[in-house]
Amino acid sequence: MNRRGFTVWFTGLPCSGKSTLAKLLHMHLNTLNYAAEILDGDEVRKRLTKGLTFSKEDRDENIRRISYVAKLVTRVGGVAITAAISPYEKLRVEARNEIINFIEVYVNCPLDVCIARDVKGHYAKAQKGEILNFTGISDPYEPPSNPEVRLHTHEETAEESIHTVLEYLKLQGYISEDVLVTQLQENLKTSAKKIKPIDVARRDSTSLVQKSS
Amino acid sequence: MNRRGFTVWFTGLPCSGKSTLAKLLHMHLNTLNYAAEILDGDEVRKRLTKGLTFSKEDRDENIRRISYVAKLVTRVGGVAITAAISPYEKLRVEARNEIINFIEVYVNCPLDVCIARDVKGHYAKAQKGEILNFTGISDPYEPPSNPEVRLHTHEETAEESIHTVLEYLKLQGYISEDVLVTQLQENLKTSAKKIKPIDVARRDSTSLVQKSS
Repeated sequence: MNRRGFTVWFTGLPCSGKSTLAKLLHMHLNTLNYAAEILDGDEVRKRLTKGLTFSKEDRDENIRRISYVAKLVTRVGGVAITAAISPYEKLRVEARNEIINFIEVYVNCPLDVCIARDVKGHYAKAQKGEILNFTGISDPYEPPSNPEVRLHTHEETAEESIHTVLEYLKLQGYISEDVLVTQLQENLKTSAKKIKPIDVARRDSTSLVQKSS
Repeated sequence: MNRRGFTVWFTGLPCSGKSTLAKLLHMHLNTLNYAAEILDGDEVRKRLTKGLTFSKEDRDENIRRISYVAKLVTRVGGVAITAAISPYEKLRVEARNEIINFIEVYVNCPLDVCIARDVKGHYAKAQKGEILNFTGISDPYEPPSNPEVRLHTHEETAEESIHTVLEYLKLQGYISEDVLVTQLQENLKTSAKKIKPIDVARRDSTSLVQKSS
C-alpha cells in the first residue's frame, strides 16, 4: 500500500554538480508524482547541524545526521535526495548500511574542472589557505569503490546525467511510470540543458572523440 | 497517488505518557498499514542534537530540528509521531506553521501524578537540584492553548487515549480504513491496557465519579 522509498545519495567534489543534479532529479521525480526531498549540505547545516565546524569529526557528524533523516524519509516510502560532498568512504558505507534502498551516485568530475567552476569562490580561498579542510585541496576525497551509478558531469549535460539516474531507478523497479520516463527521454532529445557553460566546450570535444571511437 | 502525510505532535510534562502513547499509536498505524516514524526526545538527542544542553536556547534548537524532520517525513506522505516534552508554546506554534497537517495532542496529566510515576528518577533529581531546568520543577510547561486533541492520561488507559487520537484522525480524513478502526474499537473493549500501575487506582476512583455524574 505504501510506496517503496529510496535514497539517491549524490557524492562528489565541491562544484562537481551535485546540487544541480539533486534539483533536477527532484523536479523530474515530482513530475512523475514521486514525493522527494532534497537534503542539501547547506540546508542541512542550517537546520540540523548549526554550530558544527568543518573538522573531520564534525563533518562525520553532519553526514550521520543526513543519513538519519534520509533513513526516515525512505522508510515512510518517500525519496530522499542527498547532495553533500560526503568525501569519506567509511561514512558512506555507514549510510548504506543504515538506509534501505540506497543508491550511491558518484558525480565524477576532474578536480581542475571543479576548480575552474568554483561557483562560490571556495576553491580560491582554500588554495590561499583561507578555508581549511577543503575537500580536493586540503582534505581528501575518497571516490566510491562500487557506486550504483557513475556520472561524468564534465562530459555530459545535467539532463543526460539525470537520464542515467532515472534509467537506473527504472531498471531496479524504484520508479515505474514507463510512459512518463519515455516522455522524459523525448524531452531530452529536444531540450538538453547544460550544467555550466564551461562544460560545453569540453563536452563538445570529448563527445566527438567518444562518438568516433 | 501519494498518501497524505501528517504529524502527530504529543506534548506534555515528563512522565505524562507521551512515549508510551507514541509507541502505541505507531503500532496501531502500522497495523493499519500507515508508514509512521517516532521522533522521540531521546533518539533525536542521540542522532540529531548530540552536544545540546537543556538550556532554553538548546531546547529550542532541539525542537526546531524535530520540526524540520517531521516536516520532511510529512511532506513525502509519511506519518511523523513526535514525543518530546516541547514545553514552550512559541516553539510549538513554529512547528505548526512549518508542518502541513499538524495535529497537536496535549497529553494532560497532573504534575503530582507525573512525579509519582517518575520513570527515570529525574523528578527526584530535579527536586534535589541535581538536574537544572527540569520541566515542571525548575522550568515552565506552557499548556497548549488550542490543541487538536486533549488526553487525560491519569483518567484513561493508554488504549483509550489512542482510541481518541485515532477517532480524530479518522474524522479529519487522515486515516480511512474504517473497517480496521472498527476492529481496533472492538479490541479496546476486550483488552484495555494500562499505562502504569499507579494509574489503575486513580482511574478506578475517578472513573466511578465520572460514570455516576
